[in-house]
Amino acid sequence: MSNIRHALSVKRADDFAQWYQEVISAADMAEESGVRGCMVIKPWGYGIWERVQRLLDARIKATGHDNVYFPIFIPLSNFEREAEHVEGFAKEMAVVTHHRLIADDAGTLIPDPEARLEEPLVVRPTSETIIGDAMARWIQSWRDLPLLTNQWANVVRWEMRTRMFLRTSEFLWQEGHTAHEGKADARKHTLRMLEVYRAHAEEDLALPVIAGEKPEHERFPGAVETWSIEAMMQDGKALQAGTSHYLGTNFAEAAGIRYQDRDGGQQFCHTTSWGVSTRLIGGMIMTHGDDDGMRAPPSVAPWQVVILPMLRDKPEDDALLAYCEEIRTSLADRQALGEPVRVLLDKKPGKAAAKRWDWVRKGAPIIIEVGGRDMEGGKVSLLRRDKLWVDNGKPAFDYPRREEAIAAIPGLLDDIQRSLFADAHERREANIIRGIDSINALAEFYGGDARYPGWVEVQWSKPTGAALEKVVETLKTHKLTVRNVPIGAEPADGPCVFTGDTAVERVYIGRAY
Amino acid sequence: MSNIRHALSVKRADDFAQWYQEVISAADMAEESGVRGCMVIKPWGYGIWERVQRLLDARIKATGHDNVYFPIFIPLSNFEREAEHVEGFAKEMAVVTHHRLIADDAGTLIPDPEARLEEPLVVRPTSETIIGDAMARWIQSWRDLPLLTNQWANVVRWEMRTRMFLRTSEFLWQEGHTAHEGKADARKHTLRMLEVYRAHAEEDLALPVIAGEKPEHERFPGAVETWSIEAMMQDGKALQAGTSHYLGTNFAEAAGIRYQDRDGGQQFCHTTSWGVSTRLIGGMIMTHGDDDGMRAPPSVAPWQVVILPMLRDKPEDDALLAYCEEIRTSLADRQALGEPVRVLLDKKPGKAAAKRWDWVRKGAPIIIEVGGRDMEGGKVSLLRRDKLWVDNGKPAFDYPRREEAIAAIPGLLDDIQRSLFADAHERREANIIRGIDSINALAEFYGGDARYPGWVEVQWSKPTGAALEKVVETLKTHKLTVRNVPIGAEPADGPCVFTGDTAVERVYIGRAY
Repeated sequence: MSNIRHALSVKRADDFAQWYQEVISAADMAEESGVRGCMVIKPWGYGIWERVQRLLDARIKATGHDNVYFPIFIPLSNFEREAEHVEGFAKEMAVVTHHRLIADDAGTLIPDPEARLEEPLVVRPTSETIIGDAMARWIQSWRDLPLLTNQWANVVRWEMRTRMFLRTSEFLWQEGHTAHEGKADARKHTLRMLEVYRAHAEEDLALPVIAGEKPEHERFPGAVETWSIEAMMQDGKALQAGTSHYLGTNFAEAAGIRYQDRDGGQQFCHTTSWGVSTRLIGGMIMTHGDDDGMRAPPSVAPWQVVILPMLRDKPEDDALLAYCEEIRTSLADRQALGEPVRVLLDKKPGKAAAKRWDWVRKGAPIIIEVGGRDMEGGKVSLLRRDKLWVDNGKPAFDYPRREEAIAAIPGLLDDIQRSLFADAHERREANIIRGIDSINALAEFYGGDARYPGWVEVQWSKPTGAALEKVVETLKTHKLTVRNVPIGAEPADGPCVFTGDTAVERVYIGRAY
Repeated sequence: MSNIRHALSVKRADDFAQWYQEVISAADMAEESGVRGCMVIKPWGYGIWERVQRLLDARIKATGHDNVYFPIFIPLSNFEREAEHVEGFAKEMAVVTHHRLIADDAGTLIPDPEARLEEPLVVRPTSETIIGDAMARWIQSWRDLPLLTNQWANVVRWEMRTRMFLRTSEFLWQEGHTAHEGKADARKHTLRMLEVYRAHAEEDLALPVIAGEKPEHERFPGAVETWSIEAMMQDGKALQAGTSHYLGTNFAEAAGIRYQDRDGGQQFCHTTSWGVSTRLIGGMIMTHGDDDGMRAPPSVAPWQVVILPMLRDKPEDDALLAYCEEIRTSLADRQALGEPVRVLLDKKPGKAAAKRWDWVRKGAPIIIEVGGRDMEGGKVSLLRRDKLWVDNGKPAFDYPRREEAIAAIPGLLDDIQRSLFADAHERREANIIRGIDSINALAEFYGGDARYPGWVEVQWSKPTGAALEKVVETLKTHKLTVRNVPIGAEPADGPCVFTGDTAVERVYIGRAY
């Protein structure tokens, strides 16, 4: 396949980090904003996020949640509670200290010294504490439970090293917060939302994920259990794509979230929280992108089909546009993946070939080019983004009759969605190594020649405390981390790879974002 | 109608401001957050906002806009440009000066003095400047125009006196920003988006509005023309519900938004911006609310139909729930106002009558109660929120057969939507006074007995500069403002009410929020 001239200048195999940046730029998904650590999400990137929101929101609502909105500012004192328990507390957060700008004598703008806030406000890094306070107000009795809320919002964590979509100072996310009558119901809900994330990732985003429990040291501070979905990127690294926490009564005790139980007694609620963010978009890029740019799964592609008329600034253009418009309206009337087909007739000025490659780099699932000759023959030139090339180095155009194309496209979109998932799933399975039974073997494996070594599934004795810390330190020397203990894995049947004791479960080890 | 015992403790006619607060609380739409000037938007209030977003977003996309997302933080220096032109510049904005919290020696949390930002960041009061900067990067030639963007976001303006939904320090809005080849196209777009707002307000929110141009002194700073939609509240005051600005080349010159024109020359773009906010919800409350709470227009009601089974904690409950569930699924399969009916079967524990009044106060358009006797007779008890009472002081229940109710509900929802609009429209028309031809008559009218005097349509000579300032001052002494110059009004045919000169157009005068 050496004849193929790919659309990007960097190949995944050569420099994955550089390739990632180039996809974002070539697909026109986002760019640096000039504000430290914050990005501008451009139409194609934001369009994908809107699709993520729409699909995940429907799943969250279907499980009984209402959306709410809490203030972006959180009083400093809300963090005092937390600080009391955290030794050497220091948190990277944006702190608002003034409420007015004023020009000084030299005409330079400064925060007005007269407008200093009595209590500084923190731009929310999460709404945990402020929603906890509200739950304490809202909940009186068991009749108010479960209380199931969710919020779509922007949050800020002052990150030192940022990477677009994966780690930015401001990011967009949803955060679910729920309160329950007891441990059983709260734990069940924690796992229900983990399953919602799994289904969303796999069915909507075509991201195969491993759902499982994080080990003790990776728990969200204050959580009793933290569960995650983990996806493997094309460089073999893991991306934590979503988390769901069972918080016990820890947060309820801190915020005073009590209810009168069925016998008239006062109890603390058991609470949960869970979130996913714009990081999912980074995960899709690193899972589905190829050396020609992004490949957007049809379920979340802002446009699933892009029609490109080969306009020539001549009178014949009118007939060509009419021919294309008929295709557009016919497709828009059809359903694919349970919704009307999202189809764009791109009439913008510009050369047809340049526009084709723009859409290839963005990763529109299907591109339809229509020139004069296509129209005369009642045909179209159809390109599937997931099967872009013929071995001879030419784009793999197909030339169906117009009606055939229209009839086939819903099925093609469905097929592309499945095929992106199947490819990613197959790749992940091929890159999970089993049977490594010692730290030395582990070190050897990750120290070897494989550029993108993937994950290792090992058995362990689930060490805790100091023993766990030792394991974490050992792994760290190889830049490795424990990802999670997968749900539904086969039982352990050998010794712990770290301690030599009898293993109790299987865990995934890998490098991670 | 003295027999009616209304669901609220305060009547509109007695204390409108107090009534407004009580509706928000009784309908459980929002509450104070404890963070100065910021509110918590609760499920019913946020659900209405989600419907506003969904319907308006579709209209904005249908006019060719893509959604984007820009950072919440704007560097201080972006405001320097503005400050240079504004004498005595002082702006109420939230200013971030530090990026870390730390515990001091006494264990108190403080902004870490080591983590002071070199350049403070402002929490966006609007994204005008940062989007302008991006447009300057994105636009090269006329082929890139028009550039049509929109953003849904939270913004912060440090308000001293706040009122929920109407004026809060943080609020949610959309801001459209577009760039065009010339004045004609940009002006046309300004009016196109004003028309989008008019249609959204009237067709989706059932809010009758007057679309027109704001007078010179009410223009957005830097705008060449500012247009608005103005709605009349039940206390006769005006609410500016949305604005659309033609900005000429003023912002393009400040940010350097240039394009190569069709002849190869360099030109500044003509830009527009336009926005509506969560204020619209306040407008709906003050237009549609009554002495029993909120009345949500069916198009934006999170639930259009609420089914309340009269459960008795007995074995018969199962049959009743099954009967109700059949109604729910039948309704969910039907369409009303162009979408599937949004119907809730409310199974929460609690007394049926208490639950009914909760939904009355929230303003669900249709409430269906089902008790054992209803079920036996194959019937339901149906209550229209917009026709709540019989003159004898009882709720105006209707008792159709179940199938009849299901078949009738899409039409009823449509009818409620129209009827809320018609009522509001009729009320507004009855409260616009014409024929006042002198300042004295104006002063007399507003100084009279009418508790909620409404608006006055007068003719004026469109004074500018100092003459306009004098008019504004005169009006101010009566707490009055010029609302707008309505589009499509009859031509002037008399003297200016302020100057006695020949009038050139008609304007609306009123008190305003």
